Amino acid sequence: MARKKAVAGIDIGGTNTAFALVDRKGNVIAEDKIKTSQYPEADEYVAALYAKIMQIYRKFEDEVELIGFGIGAPMGNINKGTIEYPANLPWKGITPLAELFGKHTDLPVVVTNDANAAAVGEMVYGGAKNMKDFVVITLGTGLGSGFVVNGRLLYGHQGFAGELGHTTIRPGLCNRECDCGKKGCLETYVSATGLKRTLLKVMADSISPSDLRKYSFDQLDAEMIHSAAKKGDPIALAAFERTGVILGFKLADVVSHLNPEAIFLFGGLAQAKELIFEPARRSMEENLLHIYKGKVKLLPSKLSTKNAAVLGASSLIWTLKES
Amino acid sequence: MARKKAVAGIDIGGTNTAFALVDRKGNVIAEDKIKTSQYPEADEYVAALYAKIMQIYRKFEDEVELIGFGIGAPMGNINKGTIEYPANLPWKGITPLAELFGKHTDLPVVVTNDANAAAVGEMVYGGAKNMKDFVVITLGTGLGSGFVVNGRLLYGHQGFAGELGHTTIRPGLCNRECDCGKKGCLETYVSATGLKRTLLKVMADSISPSDLRKYSFDQLDAEMIHSAAKKGDPIALAAFERTGVILGFKLADVVSHLNPEAIFLFGGLAQAKELIFEPARRSMEENLLHIYKGKVKLLPSKLSTKNAAVLGASSLIWTLKES
Repeated sequence: MARKKAVAGIDIGGTNTAFALVDRKGNVIAEDKIKTSQYPEADEYVAALYAKIMQIYRKFEDEVELIGFGIGAPMGNINKGTIEYPANLPWKGITPLAELFGKHTDLPVVVTNDANAAAVGEMVYGGAKNMKDFVVITLGTGLGSGFVVNGRLLYGHQGFAGELGHTTIRPGLCNRECDCGKKGCLETYVSATGLKRTLLKVMADSISPSDLRKYSFDQLDAEMIHSAAKKGDPIALAAFERTGVILGFKLADVVSHLNPEAIFLFGGLAQAKELIFEPARRSMEENLLHIYKGKVKLLPSKLSTKNAAVLGASSLIWTLKES
Repeated sequence: MARKKAVAGIDIGGTNTAFALVDRKGNVIAEDKIKTSQYPEADEYVAALYAKIMQIYRKFEDEVELIGFGIGAPMGNINKGTIEYPANLPWKGITPLAELFGKHTDLPVVVTNDANAAAVGEMVYGGAKNMKDFVVITLGTGLGSGFVVNGRLLYGHQGFAGELGHTTIRPGLCNRECDCGKKGCLETYVSATGLKRTLLKVMADSISPSDLRKYSFDQLDAEMIHSAAKKGDPIALAAFERTGVILGFKLADVVSHLNPEAIFLFGGLAQAKELIFEPARRSMEENLLHIYKGKVKLLPSKLSTKNAAVLGASSLIWTLKES
């Protein structure tokens, strides 16, 4: 019997690198992880990661044929196969990741950033299976985005298209500092951290009572704000409302730029469902030119949160083979 | 001797429809126009236009072979070959322009909006000849834009991608009304009309003397403001400064979305050169994430203002044939 084709999906994070063998339907055959932070040298990291993946692959080699490595990493550049100046990884400057893998394997190695990987994952395994023009926004500690145009990821000239998180919400005026050095970036408002910052702002301005007034900034997280909002906490509800309105405002720009069929929200904040979707949809529609009104779907991702990053990374190889 | 191939480029405006026979290098072989506003029925308009084009073509038929019709029109939809709900044309609702042409000819007919046509024109005949990822912004009475991604126009799901003019400059707060029914659209600030509106705002706030204080809103135009600015008029200079800053702010969003190699400015306001380019470039750079800083060129269009719309329209057919 012919062996089933599979790809290795790899999600590189600051602490852990998760990986899995994944078949064409998105089934995880096997998975494991290594500690990214234990490898200050990129070549040693790649050697250890490759060895660990092959160790697992050998167990399934009778059933499965490995056809490539798909890698999602912060600041991953698909044009060059590199990671460039990441904030939270041990390797500084430019790391030629695909080249380092190439010392161990002749199989294709594709590198891109996490949000681009999530977008391709949505197309290969998720809710965008029959779509050619859509956007995926990942809402975690920060805000990432991946744009698909005419069935392909949009990379742009340098390979860094789709950085919605660092668009600015208004000219001048903004006080809210971003890790990137700018002020007023969208991700300082629309992300788990952004929600918390907005909660503090609302708490400062409002006199409404709230259980959340008992917790310090360091103690608070997006899940606590979500729980409080579900119980009707007015401060938490207002924080979600403002977050959704700002998201929708910038989504209207995305629609005017790209005219997608749908925008998918993925990650922690998207779990809050209508608390974020309702104000985002309302604000997006308010800011849309008439030709777009009611035409663009705002949907939750259909990738499971658990495996999404690894699935997204693996999907890069399937599109490579099928294009 | 083989005849030289040529296409008919057609620019449909509210008053006139200009057209030309254009060769592959962008040379105009012959040109003429008809009055758009004289034809309340679209099928009669197309019949008259087609007849007039063929009348001219017959004179050159020994040297030239006509291979298609490229049409730029407000709200032109390339996916469907239609004009949809244009503000300033005699035909309301949806006009199936390509289909109406198809009654007279079997040659290819491509319809798109003016700014998309300008973008393709820049790629075929102008400053973007070797570029695959760039943006053209047309600054006239309004603001149009065309995005080229990986060597092709970006249309999006409905065919209406690249409507920068109706992105909004800040959430809430804006008082400036747009023809489209929204408030705070970019084209209410960055366009010939936008410059004039900003001039009035500056004039109201400032006590600086200015020759322009003699003229009514109706009397003023962008050229007068340009002349005054060149002579050092402080109100006119401030109006250009504000216009450029707002343009640059939204261009930073374009860069974060699309990561283009270059952004070209075309049309009346672009003629004001550094009066608009300098503040736009400065403001764009200030709002860019570090990975983009200094990487994206902001350039004047290389299409001559005189024939640009017709050239752009004609270029649609060349890219069709060569893709």
